[in-house]
Amino acid sequence: MKIGKYEVKIEATDKGLLGETQRRLDGLTKPVGSLGILEEIAKTVVTITGKKNPVLKNKIIVTMAGDHGITREGVSAFPMEVTPQMVLNFVNGGAAINVLARHVGAKVVIVDMGVNYDFKGAAGMLHKKIGNGTKSFTNGPAMSREEAIKSIEAGIETVMAEKEIDLIGTGDMGIGNTTPSAAITSIYTGKTVASVTGRGTGIDDQGLKNKIALIEQGITFNRPNAPDALDVLSKVGGFEIGGLAGVILGGAMRKVPVVIDGFISTAAALIAVNLEPKAADYLIASHQSVENGHKYALATLKLKPILNLDLRLGEGTGAALSMSIIDAAVKILNEMATFEGAGVSNK
Amino acid sequence: MKIGKYEVKIEATDKGLLGETQRRLDGLTKPVGSLGILEEIAKTVVTITGKKNPVLKNKIIVTMAGDHGITREGVSAFPMEVTPQMVLNFVNGGAAINVLARHVGAKVVIVDMGVNYDFKGAAGMLHKKIGNGTKSFTNGPAMSREEAIKSIEAGIETVMAEKEIDLIGTGDMGIGNTTPSAAITSIYTGKTVASVTGRGTGIDDQGLKNKIALIEQGITFNRPNAPDALDVLSKVGGFEIGGLAGVILGGAMRKVPVVIDGFISTAAALIAVNLEPKAADYLIASHQSVENGHKYALATLKLKPILNLDLRLGEGTGAALSMSIIDAAVKILNEMATFEGAGVSNK
Repeated sequence: MKIGKYEVKIEATDKGLLGETQRRLDGLTKPVGSLGILEEIAKTVVTITGKKNPVLKNKIIVTMAGDHGITREGVSAFPMEVTPQMVLNFVNGGAAINVLARHVGAKVVIVDMGVNYDFKGAAGMLHKKIGNGTKSFTNGPAMSREEAIKSIEAGIETVMAEKEIDLIGTGDMGIGNTTPSAAITSIYTGKTVASVTGRGTGIDDQGLKNKIALIEQGITFNRPNAPDALDVLSKVGGFEIGGLAGVILGGAMRKVPVVIDGFISTAAALIAVNLEPKAADYLIASHQSVENGHKYALATLKLKPILNLDLRLGEGTGAALSMSIIDAAVKILNEMATFEGAGVSNK
Repeated sequence: MKIGKYEVKIEATDKGLLGETQRRLDGLTKPVGSLGILEEIAKTVVTITGKKNPVLKNKIIVTMAGDHGITREGVSAFPMEVTPQMVLNFVNGGAAINVLARHVGAKVVIVDMGVNYDFKGAAGMLHKKIGNGTKSFTNGPAMSREEAIKSIEAGIETVMAEKEIDLIGTGDMGIGNTTPSAAITSIYTGKTVASVTGRGTGIDDQGLKNKIALIEQGITFNRPNAPDALDVLSKVGGFEIGGLAGVILGGAMRKVPVVIDGFISTAAALIAVNLEPKAADYLIASHQSVENGHKYALATLKLKPILNLDLRLGEGTGAALSMSIIDAAVKILNEMATFEGAGVSNK
């Protein structure tokens, strides 16, 4: 499949390495299986990278920002101007994602995918603006099909521009972006809009009712065609969501595990996987968000989240936190002694 | 209360700092409460340490080892000789706890509390042996009341010997030690022995039936007196369990947060808290173990585990993993920008 200038070619992950990796894990000085999900993560990273002893040295969090026309219809507790303000906060290192990425030794790559603000080529971020925010999708598409393709292309490009990467985390910033994410999630999980729509940054009961009604109206009006993920992205998506779908495809093309953050990133994963199903095996789910629809989206992707910390911030914060666990899992495989090597009796 | 040479004096945690800390968290550039459990952890560390900006620099995992007479009656999938073998594996840096402690920047303090082996004063570990393993508690107490006191005293001593500590994790090694832990858990949670007894390192159905019957027999024979935690520890406990109860008390005496690992460490916490209820507020639960009784023990202690990774290894592995999350929580409080400082509009 071709997306913009890229031929999206994703190989199947190397399941042939599973048996040997399991035997190695079982030979380490611990009861078989006693490190639970850590052992599952280690095997996943081996099959994705194709390396028997993967080392997760170069970690990045790609945090993509975009605005949403529908925000003007009152779907968020915060005003649209907060999107560029937070992007500048990222650039200055003061946001949660900066703190958590530093904590786990990851670099934050900040990308303007379509913020309604002129950053004038500011340093410390990538400029891939597709437009000054999407249009409201209540009575027309959020963006054109061409823009949808461009946004994904920009995401792939962001990954390809990195010299060495061993682990990618996804992150988002965009006031109002739980709204397109809920629309995408409803379409791909088959759940009602009401059941996948949450309070985002903190709207009240009336705001939630309004948000659900607007999403339902948008889906009814636009009739997005689920089997055509570009159609879904263009009609009810967002620029940063398209960009993150591209980051996921780019990671899979490079055989790098992609750690998806919360609700918005998982909506992007639904787009990516519906474009290219092989991308699914390259995903690791970082956490279970508070946002209603997230659990359904993860279930549809057959992913089990590593953490459950009642997070609902986005930015890549859950992805960053989980990187510490993923790193630990791989170190267990690489660094622990074997029963034989340590002279420990096996049962 | 006096335990051995120590006056166990634990102050109430400083709940007066909660309001101010909450206001500070709410002023950081994120929707109120959006970092969920991270924010709860940050507040807990503030109230325990009494510091507005605690820094978790000096982290230790105290991994205490002991043997259990009841192991000779077939309660474990591994032979007793594995306890000293694993202790030497700890000393050599090859075990899971070594890998995970290195990963989070914690020092491992290995303590022989009562292994059935002569380490001959080997370097790289502390020697506080109370005896060569406990006696089987099926038809008599596991240890004398004096030994119970000595084991707790040794745990306090271990903590007091550390120059600077900001965060303590507990860990255990002792083939057979889910058996005394299940006995203690049954006594303090009021749950049946069958409901709190699990497969430990991996016994089969027949082994599990046998294990439950032996624990029931031991409780019936010894009639441990729940309000007297020293009586419970001496009749159905273990040397490393007493030691860890002492570590918890010592941490609380020094106002250091104590991160408890899995089932065995939580049994030790039940002993500690029943000796001195104020110790409860100094505990952080690292993870939810696979072992049946753990969830009941945590509920009795009113603790919510940070991680749920299907671990069942012990050694302090869950405590180590969670330290990365606890550290992250405190960094959020210390390092994030405020709405005002970053020029971000609040809702």
